[in-house]
Amino acid sequence: MTATEPSRTDLSLPQPRASARSGIASFIVMDVMAAAAMREAAGEGVIHMEVGQPATPAPKTAREALARALETDTLGYTLAMGTPALRQRIARHYRDTYGVAVAPERVVVTAGSSAAFVLAFLAAFDSGARVALPSPGYPCYRHILTALGCVPVMLETDAAGRWMATPEQIAAAAAGGLAGLLIASPANPTGTMLEPERLRAICEVCRKHGLWFISDEIYHGLTYGAPAQTALAYNDDAIVINSFSKYYSMTGWRVGWMVVPERLVRAIERLAQNLYISPPAPAQVAALAAFEAGEELEANRRVYAASRDLLLRELPKAGLTGIVPADGAFYLYVDVGAFTDDSLAFARLMLEETGVAATPGVDFDATRGRRFLRFSYAGATADMAEAVRRLQGWARLKRAR
Amino acid sequence: MTATEPSRTDLSLPQPRASARSGIASFIVMDVMAAAAMREAAGEGVIHMEVGQPATPAPKTAREALARALETDTLGYTLAMGTPALRQRIARHYRDTYGVAVAPERVVVTAGSSAAFVLAFLAAFDSGARVALPSPGYPCYRHILTALGCVPVMLETDAAGRWMATPEQIAAAAAGGLAGLLIASPANPTGTMLEPERLRAICEVCRKHGLWFISDEIYHGLTYGAPAQTALAYNDDAIVINSFSKYYSMTGWRVGWMVVPERLVRAIERLAQNLYISPPAPAQVAALAAFEAGEELEANRRVYAASRDLLLRELPKAGLTGIVPADGAFYLYVDVGAFTDDSLAFARLMLEETGVAATPGVDFDATRGRRFLRFSYAGATADMAEAVRRLQGWARLKRAR
Repeated sequence: MTATEPSRTDLSLPQPRASARSGIASFIVMDVMAAAAMREAAGEGVIHMEVGQPATPAPKTAREALARALETDTLGYTLAMGTPALRQRIARHYRDTYGVAVAPERVVVTAGSSAAFVLAFLAAFDSGARVALPSPGYPCYRHILTALGCVPVMLETDAAGRWMATPEQIAAAAAGGLAGLLIASPANPTGTMLEPERLRAICEVCRKHGLWFISDEIYHGLTYGAPAQTALAYNDDAIVINSFSKYYSMTGWRVGWMVVPERLVRAIERLAQNLYISPPAPAQVAALAAFEAGEELEANRRVYAASRDLLLRELPKAGLTGIVPADGAFYLYVDVGAFTDDSLAFARLMLEETGVAATPGVDFDATRGRRFLRFSYAGATADMAEAVRRLQGWARLKRAR
Repeated sequence: MTATEPSRTDLSLPQPRASARSGIASFIVMDVMAAAAMREAAGEGVIHMEVGQPATPAPKTAREALARALETDTLGYTLAMGTPALRQRIARHYRDTYGVAVAPERVVVTAGSSAAFVLAFLAAFDSGARVALPSPGYPCYRHILTALGCVPVMLETDAAGRWMATPEQIAAAAAGGLAGLLIASPANPTGTMLEPERLRAICEVCRKHGLWFISDEIYHGLTYGAPAQTALAYNDDAIVINSFSKYYSMTGWRVGWMVVPERLVRAIERLAQNLYISPPAPAQVAALAAFEAGEELEANRRVYAASRDLLLRELPKAGLTGIVPADGAFYLYVDVGAFTDDSLAFARLMLEETGVAATPGVDFDATRGRRFLRFSYAGATADMAEAVRRLQGWARLKRAR
């Protein structure tokens, strides 16, 4: 067939418009990624420090398990809550890693932590609900909440407080009316963590004020000092969200999980059935086998640890100072206020002039983020070293050194 | 570590509750699937006629492409709208199959059609928007709309009208206030199709009343007479949704697509970035290669055609009469009003006594569906023949023959 033009809309008639709620901000890191991809398509190299994803593929055990399944399984829809084997294995992970008992029935396999947020927000919050979030923070929290009719309430944190909210701050916000609180530890974009005592105190505040506590534990396993403790150790009523994307190096696979209180299980199941049908079957096969990849995953973590040390040592020599050393994840949140108060333009210029992509702080904090960049060190160490070399040579930073 | 009990919630304090909007109905087919899985776990066989999914795996070209990618690619996040190669290939599909020109920039790769519905509804409709849907119809349409604060407006159809809404009916509903209309053709659960002239007339009504028209084309390719035409041939402003799940036999992979008007592209991109980050990377690799599987997919279609003929011939001998012959998809919507007015209980009993799983009509039509079952004939032909044998021997149906 030859291509024909479809009939054109008669412009004299009223045209339906985009919704108001689709006017949420973009996830800027994805826009930076798209700009970087355009640069690469034009034949120019990019060092990717914008996206929070490992340069490594899924672990070998995971890839091999899927390769076998491709020969033998139909990989159709699974149950909406995930395969029973994976739910059981995740439950065992809580006993093995944290010493916390979790019934497999409370485990929900999701299409990445993204799906877990949508499910948690829809299950826990009605339209108009106010939900507290530390700022800076992962931008999709506030954007998804907004798209779903909820109201994000920002809790400002700062470098002096290691970018973490305090129990007092949360209690004060609760007095103003809150339905829930969401905290990530280790946090994005700062990599800092809640101390166990602070986590316990925050759980207490939530309990006292009848708030849902959503604990984003996606960076667990990626810590460089003390290991992270799950919120479930302090509050069995917490909604815990995790993923195979980061520690298990499976970003593009879109498989994660949540642990929810019993009284939310059926609500989440109904929502998951309708909004997702099931998490991706190939990813679930791979995820189950990823639990057997301990050695490989620890080796990845050691690479991040080395990159973290390198950046903490070398970035200040490029004039990038005042970085709070990250406890975990693979990010550094860098104050570039000496150079700019428009981090978006600055990141664009840096990409253009050095080929190093980083994420403007406005993605994580719409106002104060104008003076920050987030560097991800999840890439290969050689790339990190090259990035540092280029940044140290970059005239704009040089002038200010 | 040994497992310890997490600290228990103090029941004297107020506990947060599930949201009101999580009170949507379940996607009953997934509940039937869970019941069937329990039966199978107990060692009893089940003939699966409940779920709309092929018994075949993804085509060989798709599985081979992924097996290669597992060796060479990191399979990280793709761009939020999908890989450029896949978007281009899908655009070409519209030229090759329908003779319609579609710019790749208007193609959005999604995590199955499920994600496409969420994105379309959020992008096109605000809370409170009224959206018309034929009834019976795919239950997730109305449940997702409800969870997102919209109001489904049901357009009752019947067997005499081949289960399809009329332009007049839609115009009447529009007069009562509508923001959009969603129609699937071939339809689920009935397999019936809109004639090209009716599709054109419906597009006209939508244009005239300024309604968004969402065309669910997920069963395109699976037709047994005339091929289906895309709504884009009649209305370049339509939102078209499709998937690799059905014709391409990739249900569990969660990869689909939509074609949207230019003025919705950026809204959809922002929503996709925030709610999904990206569609699954392994599934996108496989989907691109699935376009090369013409022969294998046509062979699958011929199997469905044979099963359709078998069921249309043999089900009436079991006392199941009055079936409208399906034009496409792989479903028959069967009137069981002679036996029951509680299709949920009837389906449960049928599963128990014959091992044949089918979906109660209440999933598709909460009231009149009490007298209907949906049989999917996407399974293996031998299974369909065995199902017919069992149903013909089943006492409950025998008595009424």
